[in-house]
Amino acid sequence: MTDITATAATPPDVLRCAYAELIVSDLAESRAFYVGVLGLVVTYEDDEAIYLRAFEEYLHHSLIIRKGPVPALAVLAYRVRSPRELDVAVEYYTQLGVRVERRAAGATRGIGEAVRIEDPLGFPIEFFYDAEHVERFTQRYDVHGAGAISRLDHFNVVTPDVPAAVKYYEGLNFRVSEDIEDAEKTVYAAWMFRKPTVHDVALTGGDGPRMHHIAFATHERSQILHLCDHLGAIRQSDKIERGPGRHGVSNAFYLYLLDPDGHRIEIYTHDYYTGDPDNPTITWDVHDNQRRDWWGTPVVPSWYTNASTVLDLDGVPRGVEQRTDAREDAVTIGADGFSYTRIDDEPAGFKLGSQL
Amino acid sequence: MTDITATAATPPDVLRCAYAELIVSDLAESRAFYVGVLGLVVTYEDDEAIYLRAFEEYLHHSLIIRKGPVPALAVLAYRVRSPRELDVAVEYYTQLGVRVERRAAGATRGIGEAVRIEDPLGFPIEFFYDAEHVERFTQRYDVHGAGAISRLDHFNVVTPDVPAAVKYYEGLNFRVSEDIEDAEKTVYAAWMFRKPTVHDVALTGGDGPRMHHIAFATHERSQILHLCDHLGAIRQSDKIERGPGRHGVSNAFYLYLLDPDGHRIEIYTHDYYTGDPDNPTITWDVHDNQRRDWWGTPVVPSWYTNASTVLDLDGVPRGVEQRTDAREDAVTIGADGFSYTRIDDEPAGFKLGSQL
Amino acid sequence: MTDITATAATPPDVLRCAYAELIVSDLAESRAFYVGVLGLVVTYEDDEAIYLRAFEEYLHHSLIIRKGPVPALAVLAYRVRSPRELDVAVEYYTQLGVRVERRAAGATRGIGEAVRIEDPLGFPIEFFYDAEHVERFTQRYDVHGAGAISRLDHFNVVTPDVPAAVKYYEGLNFRVSEDIEDAEKTVYAAWMFRKPTVHDVALTGGDGPRMHHIAFATHERSQILHLCDHLGAIRQSDKIERGPGRHGVSNAFYLYLLDPDGHRIEIYTHDYYTGDPDNPTITWDVHDNQRRDWWGTPVVPSWYTNASTVLDLDGVPRGVEQRTDAREDAVTIGADGFSYTRIDDEPAGFKLGSQL
Amino acid sequence: MTDITATAATPPDVLRCAYAELIVSDLAESRAFYVGVLGLVVTYEDDEAIYLRAFEEYLHHSLIIRKGPVPALAVLAYRVRSPRELDVAVEYYTQLGVRVERRAAGATRGIGEAVRIEDPLGFPIEFFYDAEHVERFTQRYDVHGAGAISRLDHFNVVTPDVPAAVKYYEGLNFRVSEDIEDAEKTVYAAWMFRKPTVHDVALTGGDGPRMHHIAFATHERSQILHLCDHLGAIRQSDKIERGPGRHGVSNAFYLYLLDPDGHRIEIYTHDYYTGDPDNPTITWDVHDNQRRDWWGTPVVPSWYTNASTVLDLDGVPRGVEQRTDAREDAVTIGADGFSYTRIDDEPAGFKLGSQL
Repeated sequence: MTDITATAATPPDVLRCAYAELIVSDLAESRAFYVGVLGLVVTYEDDEAIYLRAFEEYLHHSLIIRKGPVPALAVLAYRVRSPRELDVAVEYYTQLGVRVERRAAGATRGIGEAVRIEDPLGFPIEFFYDAEHVERFTQRYDVHGAGAISRLDHFNVVTPDVPAAVKYYEGLNFRVSEDIEDAEKTVYAAWMFRKPTVHDVALTGGDGPRMHHIAFATHERSQILHLCDHLGAIRQSDKIERGPGRHGVSNAFYLYLLDPDGHRIEIYTHDYYTGDPDNPTITWDVHDNQRRDWWGTPVVPSWYTNASTVLDLDGVPRGVEQRTDAREDAVTIGADGFSYTRIDDEPAGFKLGSQL
Repeated sequence: MTDITATAATPPDVLRCAYAELIVSDLAESRAFYVGVLGLVVTYEDDEAIYLRAFEEYLHHSLIIRKGPVPALAVLAYRVRSPRELDVAVEYYTQLGVRVERRAAGATRGIGEAVRIEDPLGFPIEFFYDAEHVERFTQRYDVHGAGAISRLDHFNVVTPDVPAAVKYYEGLNFRVSEDIEDAEKTVYAAWMFRKPTVHDVALTGGDGPRMHHIAFATHERSQILHLCDHLGAIRQSDKIERGPGRHGVSNAFYLYLLDPDGHRIEIYTHDYYTGDPDNPTITWDVHDNQRRDWWGTPVVPSWYTNASTVLDLDGVPRGVEQRTDAREDAVTIGADGFSYTRIDDEPAGFKLGSQL
Repeated sequence: MTDITATAATPPDVLRCAYAELIVSDLAESRAFYVGVLGLVVTYEDDEAIYLRAFEEYLHHSLIIRKGPVPALAVLAYRVRSPRELDVAVEYYTQLGVRVERRAAGATRGIGEAVRIEDPLGFPIEFFYDAEHVERFTQRYDVHGAGAISRLDHFNVVTPDVPAAVKYYEGLNFRVSEDIEDAEKTVYAAWMFRKPTVHDVALTGGDGPRMHHIAFATHERSQILHLCDHLGAIRQSDKIERGPGRHGVSNAFYLYLLDPDGHRIEIYTHDYYTGDPDNPTITWDVHDNQRRDWWGTPVVPSWYTNASTVLDLDGVPRGVEQRTDAREDAVTIGADGFSYTRIDDEPAGFKLGSQL
Repeated sequence: MTDITATAATPPDVLRCAYAELIVSDLAESRAFYVGVLGLVVTYEDDEAIYLRAFEEYLHHSLIIRKGPVPALAVLAYRVRSPRELDVAVEYYTQLGVRVERRAAGATRGIGEAVRIEDPLGFPIEFFYDAEHVERFTQRYDVHGAGAISRLDHFNVVTPDVPAAVKYYEGLNFRVSEDIEDAEKTVYAAWMFRKPTVHDVALTGGDGPRMHHIAFATHERSQILHLCDHLGAIRQSDKIERGPGRHGVSNAFYLYLLDPDGHRIEIYTHDYYTGDPDNPTITWDVHDNQRRDWWGTPVVPSWYTNASTVLDLDGVPRGVEQRTDAREDAVTIGADGFSYTRIDDEPAGFKLGSQL
């Protein structure tokens, strides 16, 4: 990985995670999922792409799904505090020695001038400030369904070396809210934020760069439960990969769904305010069976292993680098893995796994 | 099994499932579970037993936990429409040729005169009408916790021959609301009711007689979710056996917990009205992956295999008779088992199991 | 009133309240309310009428809205246990001396043979058993909105002499779950049931016969709250007459809406099981400020005074008889009225009223 | 009012509203309300004061209730970004010409060095950074009640000249999220924030300085509804002043309670993210009947007129200055007031008021 400490330049002032663009194989099928089930609002659509937003969002989109040859992540976009931050970003990433491209206003529909980079972790990242404002549907309860989604919450990316990735994001003035470690200080995952929630980006240890998931927030748990009921009703319950449940990390109530191409979407609510500078960082033991599900429900193995391909700025799929540190699934559910519910208990396999 | 058609006698008029008595090994530990976590109201307790009720119940108890040498089910009690029904019950079961005992008022604290039988399925069953009235805590919101339980909902028993058991309960004028079958008409389970809900008793095919679980109802799903959160907080998430989820059968939102002796307790809400005589019976295909969980979440194997020992009227543990029909776990999750999410799909193993 | 004790005939065996027919002035506007906002399922519609049901109902309809010259209640229908009960009803009401008419199957779309009467309280009442079965949408979560309604719950009628009306319904084997009285035993209202909920019919003291409201049940409170949010979003919040709130009587969470003609519709959830013969009757003091709203929120005066006209079996609007007993609004919110939050408190006007 | 534009000094960098101190007349009664009903966690208590926090807070307290001769607000405290900001605050307010006092660490239990001022609006305000950390009960679901409160959300203060107050807070780099105006640009209230929610402070037009309320946030609406149910159960429903309901402004679900001394406490959930610099400001028409309650429920008159006395830094009650601009209650519910549900409708009195 590029030495992310190689610059003394000022980083751009990031507000928050802002939108993602996913490449999908069949636009109609994806529309049925993102609009028909998740209920996202269509800002614009044509034969090539659909621009979507959640009910409390007033920027043009927080998700683009675009037709393409290979299902993949095309870009993760962060909003910066002002247009001036684009120059700051160009200077910062140029000094970091990664690929940097300026994009004219409108290069992405609804988005003004932007800067795209391939970040040191290998992800295609955009920074922008200007964006088209559209109607905010906060109180448009006439179109809110039973599973109404409020806003984009965070990105989760897979990267081999979590401490290096944390260092990179700390360079961007993100802070760690929680992480998962073992007694040897191996870091399995970390949650980092700019806006005062548990995260704008989570760093999940594994072969990367790959995209683990994109997460949207709801107001209440009932909205998440309805999405499950809805998928059952249309006989697509196999799109429910994991959950619903309560995370240990973040305390959020969660659900992981798979879109028609297998891109993972989380629906998430009830994390907590992290905006004070002394917000306590919580470190979870990787063997704590409640770290990823407070109720001890086992993590489905696919959740550890599967993730989306990432494109470079030319739209070419990136190869992945193997994780060399211990893997969370191996140390918890594999033959040599273990987890515990109470720290002084006999270690045991995970709840369901131990019965199979 | 006793031929349950051997009598033309009138059956007793059963109102509903009314209480269960469970034998537990450590009263303090059980109290921590039933009172500390579930929040049931203690009507009376001493060194031998605790008499519990839920917030909307006005009879003395709907659950007794009693200290004893072997964790087991001591009795399942049905309330009948009037004291006169006790004589009817004596006559009915005498003609059926099973063991019948009259019990004086107070033989069970809070309960009036009663009749106990060993039913043709091998279960210790009580019929009673008279019972002590106590304060109904419906509006005692000052003591309702976040996981408030409203009332006992149903019993679930394991029995080898489900069609025979259905016939027996039809003799008592219970009706079937839903069942699970396969293409060869093997019946895996049936849900039967007197009060107009989906069931007062569910008949689960397996080695029996054993008690599968006792279920309590809440008003809303949030109360069920809180019980999970609470168990996580006290580091007893391993008491969560299965769920929370949405049942296919009954449509109820559910959670299965294990008490300190492994007795299974379900918390349940949102089933539907069944009180009209033409209430449609729903038959589910045993291979339908949404039958037991509408979201396709796999059933934990222990849920199929584990159940509580049943005592006879002398308090002696009963032996079990093997089920000879096909077993639901074998035909769905075993090596030769399969299930599907969409009926025209390629059969597949269950969601998590296929990943392990 | 007809002496309702004038017969020793057997009454028909009523299962539950089953459907109502309302006359409305503009079918399109009513459709926007009942289908667009409440989300009821249209079983059938033409230029004259719309036949509606809730998501857990499998009979053809639980509500008919029909175009007509005068907004009114056309009929309240109870389902009986079998077709044979129709003959029983004819005999019973003939002996009572009220008007009785047999109706051929299909006289009302979706309903089989029926009997209509003008009951001793002056209401047009139908009894039926046979009805067309249609799809039960219990698990059609793909079409459940955020305000999903499960089933019809009860009727509420205005009648001058509540004790006489109670006596009449007791003749039909309805039982009282709760009532409102004063120290002089004046009865202001009573709640009576056949199915084991708090009521199938409520008897509200006032000038009658008039229809006070029709109530539908939801699973949870969030669905009721959404209806309010939805009405706000379409700028029809003035259709919210009272609530949402928690009833004292029944403990149910409630909301009263007005349809475009001013017919009152309640949405209701969380009452309790009343099916045991010794279900305790709860009597509330008319001066208890928490009887109609557990939170002490004042009852809107219109809720006491307004109610729908009732038609006779010829479709002619009925005149009303004045209530001669004390009126609940007069004794609680008028110049001489009072209510209390704590029984030993200084009496006071109601919460908001005392500030105006 | 002091000319708040009289300084070019840099304002302190405020993070958020952080704690309030209320003077109460009876500590035991107040404890029954704040701990017994609201369920706040006691960090420390003695005969003089109780230090309270909500479940997701890790600073020593977010509310102090202290025994004193006159029920009043003693201080509103904002947290600043670092200890250095205290010097900034001293310089800023000294230049503004208001009273400024430094306070040693521990002058308030649990709080480090601080600066107190009498702000140009007449309120006693504290700035602090250092504070004692205590256990964060985010996941202590074993002690979360059914009405669990997560964190302090905002202050609401009454001040005669809202535009002047807005200008003052803009000087502190607060931004306006929403406000209420009329066609003549009279401003009736404004909502202003530093943390990215709808507000840290609301400015309500009226005679001031007085404290209108302190607000706490919950995760879901069910927790707010439970507080009402709880107050009903202990026969203190008269402590419910207004709500529950859905605000127009902020979109939050709300409830206003009165503590034993009449201090108003709001419980609040479901507002929205405001953290982007171009967050659209929403201006509501004062005559829009859905501005303060989206469901059109009338605002109780006391909510407009009553507010808590404010102490100066010596603990002496402040006199109030009269509002000279039009008053919201007068223009909406008084004899000459009006409001509308649809902008093109005939103006009408408010929903309940017009019936009385």
